[in-house]
Amino acid sequence: MTQPVTFWFEFASTYSYLSAMRIEHEAARRNVSVVWKPFTLGPIFAAQGWNTSPFSVYPSKGRYMWRDMERRTRKYGLPFQRPTRDDPRAFPQNSIPALRIAVAALTEPWGITYCRNIYTAQFADNRDISTPEVITDCIISAGGDPDAILAQSQLPEFKPQLRANTEAAQAIGIFGAPSFTVGEELFWGDDRLEDALDWAAEA
Amino acid sequence: MTQPVTFWFEFASTYSYLSAMRIEHEAARRNVSVVWKPFTLGPIFAAQGWNTSPFSVYPSKGRYMWRDMERRTRKYGLPFQRPTRDDPRAFPQNSIPALRIAVAALTEPWGITYCRNIYTAQFADNRDISTPEVITDCIISAGGDPDAILAQSQLPEFKPQLRANTEAAQAIGIFGAPSFTVGEELFWGDDRLEDALDWAAEA
Repeated sequence: MTQPVTFWFEFASTYSYLSAMRIEHEAARRNVSVVWKPFTLGPIFAAQGWNTSPFSVYPSKGRYMWRDMERRTRKYGLPFQRPTRDDPRAFPQNSIPALRIAVAALTEPWGITYCRNIYTAQFADNRDISTPEVITDCIISAGGDPDAILAQSQLPEFKPQLRANTEAAQAIGIFGAPSFTVGEELFWGDDRLEDALDWAAEA
Repeated sequence: MTQPVTFWFEFASTYSYLSAMRIEHEAARRNVSVVWKPFTLGPIFAAQGWNTSPFSVYPSKGRYMWRDMERRTRKYGLPFQRPTRDDPRAFPQNSIPALRIAVAALTEPWGITYCRNIYTAQFADNRDISTPEVITDCIISAGGDPDAILAQSQLPEFKPQLRANTEAAQAIGIFGAPSFTVGEELFWGDDRLEDALDWAAEA
């Protein structure tokens, strides 16, 4: 008997990119199912006194993170580009529009592909995921209908869900992304992906 | 050809305990040599605006860390006790006296054992490593002479070294412990121990 793993992710989170690209393969190997749970880091960082990513608040941590991402993506065979645009908004990006779509898209068979497409657009292709063009591209190449899913994401059934997910994350002590939960057990960081899945497999 | 790895550690750091107990074995497997470099996190955290450990500044991160340490020590087969004393000073402990001794002790053949003994005293036996009794015990059980090493640690050759190490750490962008360097390459966290050693082995 295995338990499902809940994968708490944020599109603006660099290390969530690694997990988004790895988790389904690693989960399948262990016969574990994954529930993708989009949430926003903004309110969680604000509660810690930060008005942006800790990688921007603490420059040495930020410099380290970009180098670490280069090494990790190479290790995992994933494409990666540091944001190079001369734009202070290049990181962290505004992920809210893409996350709102994710809530609805993840009820569709193409939802996970859409999420991966958003990560690839941002961290491999250096595109701005807050724009309708990029979001639309990511939906279409996943096999979805942009107009239909946009309309769906506005329904009362989906619209409040992103905020509810974020409040749930905060309530269970999540302080960063990616995070993974197996029952009451919390794991933080792409470094704990395998541990979380092993925990679920042995539950 | 392999390069040496420099292991930057702080006795007050929980995750440094994991690395201190693992690094020699993992390094030997790769034919990599390790330079143990004690430093203090106080000035580095102060530069980030914290007057104590981030695990105390950010309670949800702290709660997570203790649970994570329980799981990790179990995984690695290491003894572990959460600090239980009703003492707000239980974490982080004052590590300075033990670190000053470490600078001198690491020039002796028993120095690494002394360092491990300090970690074990603190995180397995829940003892206060700022006390002369505990430090003395750790020196003796490593095979050292407490009076001799204490005198040696006061010499001009050793006394300024702890501060110099900390300044060097800060200068190269170290922001937490454990950290590992291989040439100019920086790795942070016990999670990157294997990556740092692999990097050194392939250099």
